[in-house]
Amino acid sequence: MDISTTIKAAVDNSSWIRKMFDEGQALKQKFGCNNVFDFSIGNSVLEPPLEVKSALLKLIHSNEKGMHRYMSNQGLLEARQHIASELTTDAQMNFGAEDIVICAGAASGLNIVLKTLCNPGDEVIVLSPFFIEYKSYIANHGAVIKIVETNDQFQIDFTKLAAAISNKTRAIIINSPNNPSGAVYPESDIQKLGELLTQKSNELNTTITLISDEPYRRIIFDEVFVPFIFKHYTEAIVITSYSKDIAIPGERMGYIAVSPQIQNKSELVAGLVISLRTLGFVNAPALFQRVIPYASKALVDISIYKQNRDLLYNHLTDLGLHCIKPAGTFYLFPKTPIANEMEFIEIAKQHNLLLVPGQAFGAPGHFRISYCCEVDMVKRALPIFTKVMEQVAAENTAN
Amino acid sequence: MDISTTIKAAVDNSSWIRKMFDEGQALKQKFGCNNVFDFSIGNSVLEPPLEVKSALLKLIHSNEKGMHRYMSNQGLLEARQHIASELTTDAQMNFGAEDIVICAGAASGLNIVLKTLCNPGDEVIVLSPFFIEYKSYIANHGAVIKIVETNDQFQIDFTKLAAAISNKTRAIIINSPNNPSGAVYPESDIQKLGELLTQKSNELNTTITLISDEPYRRIIFDEVFVPFIFKHYTEAIVITSYSKDIAIPGERMGYIAVSPQIQNKSELVAGLVISLRTLGFVNAPALFQRVIPYASKALVDISIYKQNRDLLYNHLTDLGLHCIKPAGTFYLFPKTPIANEMEFIEIAKQHNLLLVPGQAFGAPGHFRISYCCEVDMVKRALPIFTKVMEQVAAENTAN
Repeated sequence: MDISTTIKAAVDNSSWIRKMFDEGQALKQKFGCNNVFDFSIGNSVLEPPLEVKSALLKLIHSNEKGMHRYMSNQGLLEARQHIASELTTDAQMNFGAEDIVICAGAASGLNIVLKTLCNPGDEVIVLSPFFIEYKSYIANHGAVIKIVETNDQFQIDFTKLAAAISNKTRAIIINSPNNPSGAVYPESDIQKLGELLTQKSNELNTTITLISDEPYRRIIFDEVFVPFIFKHYTEAIVITSYSKDIAIPGERMGYIAVSPQIQNKSELVAGLVISLRTLGFVNAPALFQRVIPYASKALVDISIYKQNRDLLYNHLTDLGLHCIKPAGTFYLFPKTPIANEMEFIEIAKQHNLLLVPGQAFGAPGHFRISYCCEVDMVKRALPIFTKVMEQVAAENTAN
Repeated sequence: MDISTTIKAAVDNSSWIRKMFDEGQALKQKFGCNNVFDFSIGNSVLEPPLEVKSALLKLIHSNEKGMHRYMSNQGLLEARQHIASELTTDAQMNFGAEDIVICAGAASGLNIVLKTLCNPGDEVIVLSPFFIEYKSYIANHGAVIKIVETNDQFQIDFTKLAAAISNKTRAIIINSPNNPSGAVYPESDIQKLGELLTQKSNELNTTITLISDEPYRRIIFDEVFVPFIFKHYTEAIVITSYSKDIAIPGERMGYIAVSPQIQNKSELVAGLVISLRTLGFVNAPALFQRVIPYASKALVDISIYKQNRDLLYNHLTDLGLHCIKPAGTFYLFPKTPIANEMEFIEIAKQHNLLLVPGQAFGAPGHFRISYCCEVDMVKRALPIFTKVMEQVAAENTAN
């Protein structure tokens, strides 16, 4: 049986991140968990905050009827009201339950929004480096990805961005704090982005929707502020997830928030709900929707991520690697010390050190370290990085 | 902002079932729950069997680490092994964990399978009456629906089916026990179907995949047997869900099982996993995957559905309505007593009796009753059906 041409190509060229994850599992079986340094996937070892467990127990003991039934496709009213009220405070703008669609994590939210917005051939701009699955999410709905590079600090390059916008541009996806670079866009740049999109929409007599993918909003260090996009642009949609901040990535829980002032809001939200339903999500998982009001303000212990970032950043820069210090997320995205990134990734793997090549994020010549792991593993990995760099230097001299 | 043309059309022509569900909520607010007879949606009032609650408590109290983390996109190995072992017994064929993909309910499973199989323009045959969302699931992935009517007993019409198959046919979806008709296909017909598909695949030098959507497999009455398709056809995929049999529709839990003998199995399963991931499901909800091994053999009290079926079937046939007695599911699909089905639906609504028109299932001239409700509501609704029929008769005489 032949599977679809698109999916066949995807099988042959499977996700680097997942490939590394699977290789890691195999290496761990062979060498033991403590001898493999798996920095491949963003699957945190941290447990959810206690609020998650206590909410689950409270709900299950309540014996409330109908807890596991279907509900409105848009999501449980109480959960949407709770999220809207939090956003009203945090984003300093009035949100109602009608502005929120609860979805099964950010990956579902992106598919739902793109399906709702895009006609075939519409272009969606993505800033590189970026989470590579965006490519599939955009292609799923017949739209076309347009990649725009960021500058050498992984910040928005407004000249390049302005040049990429055309009357085919339907949307732009930003992701700050950014996976894989850890960059956070400052408020001045979000304001500038809003101005650019307003100006271009007017010039081209079109509507460009700004989609902000924000699962790492609360995984930030050094009192960095992550600005909300809503104040700076009306055609704005935020997609987020509870996967990272309360560490429940397996439970698939997140939401879509549309700007309360967005054009044709009721039609847009009705469209989002239909896309959510017909893509087969039907509703975000019921029990965890009920957990949200109890746990949404809790947070995993991000001081662990900060320790990991500092240990890794300091050691790698000491080793001479070029790296932008991440302001958030749990990723580092250094330049590879040699031009051939796959050669570097292979040398690291010989030392049981698992990294993801930059090409997996549309930015060859880099590698990603995911450090949502125990501090102890990072400490044990530092000398391994040293050894890898020594081997790179030795092979480089030999050549 | 204009949303996509397809989604805009869908908003304007929203699901009848959900529309009735929403109208029902409004009527209940106005007249009180006990005065509205909502037979619109298949959202059972039954609570899950006790095994679900005890499994949840056991899991949460276990304090096992990593319970809410990402896992293999294909699903938790233990849960897949459990499902494979059950299928090995039930379908009398050897299944392994590698033949199972755990998905977020049958709606997700159908999207995942169709995305994996279909190239743009491929045809997918559906037998009417059918769950109307199949239309969207098929269109989502660029394929084209081809509707084939069943016979007057809602059983497969092999002459019509054979005529509909061409070299464009990529798959056929069957759904037995059937929503909305309650029909169950006997083993002799499944065997005949397998023979027809084998013959046509050979003749046309193509592969036609048989997709069996089976969420109602265990909601059956009168000791009816629901045959497995695997024995009768090799290019076979079963999609099912725990929504109905253990009454957790809000939790989104189900699985895809591919025939152990299917061609190119490893590529097919790899494709399913990629589709599951890139459509944004990532993995089926983690906690409920862990519930499955504890609860999969439990069953809601279907004697309630049987009582409801008997009360309704006997009363409606006494009233002169033409109706095939359902062998499974919790639906009845009688013919409307007047040609204009919407007129009938409207008259019923005037009595706070909520039904779904047959056009919502590609079979105008019928209406669906969803009776996954308390027996008491059915008993109170019987005289309402009588009144509706009296009004229909009176208006008919007047005209």
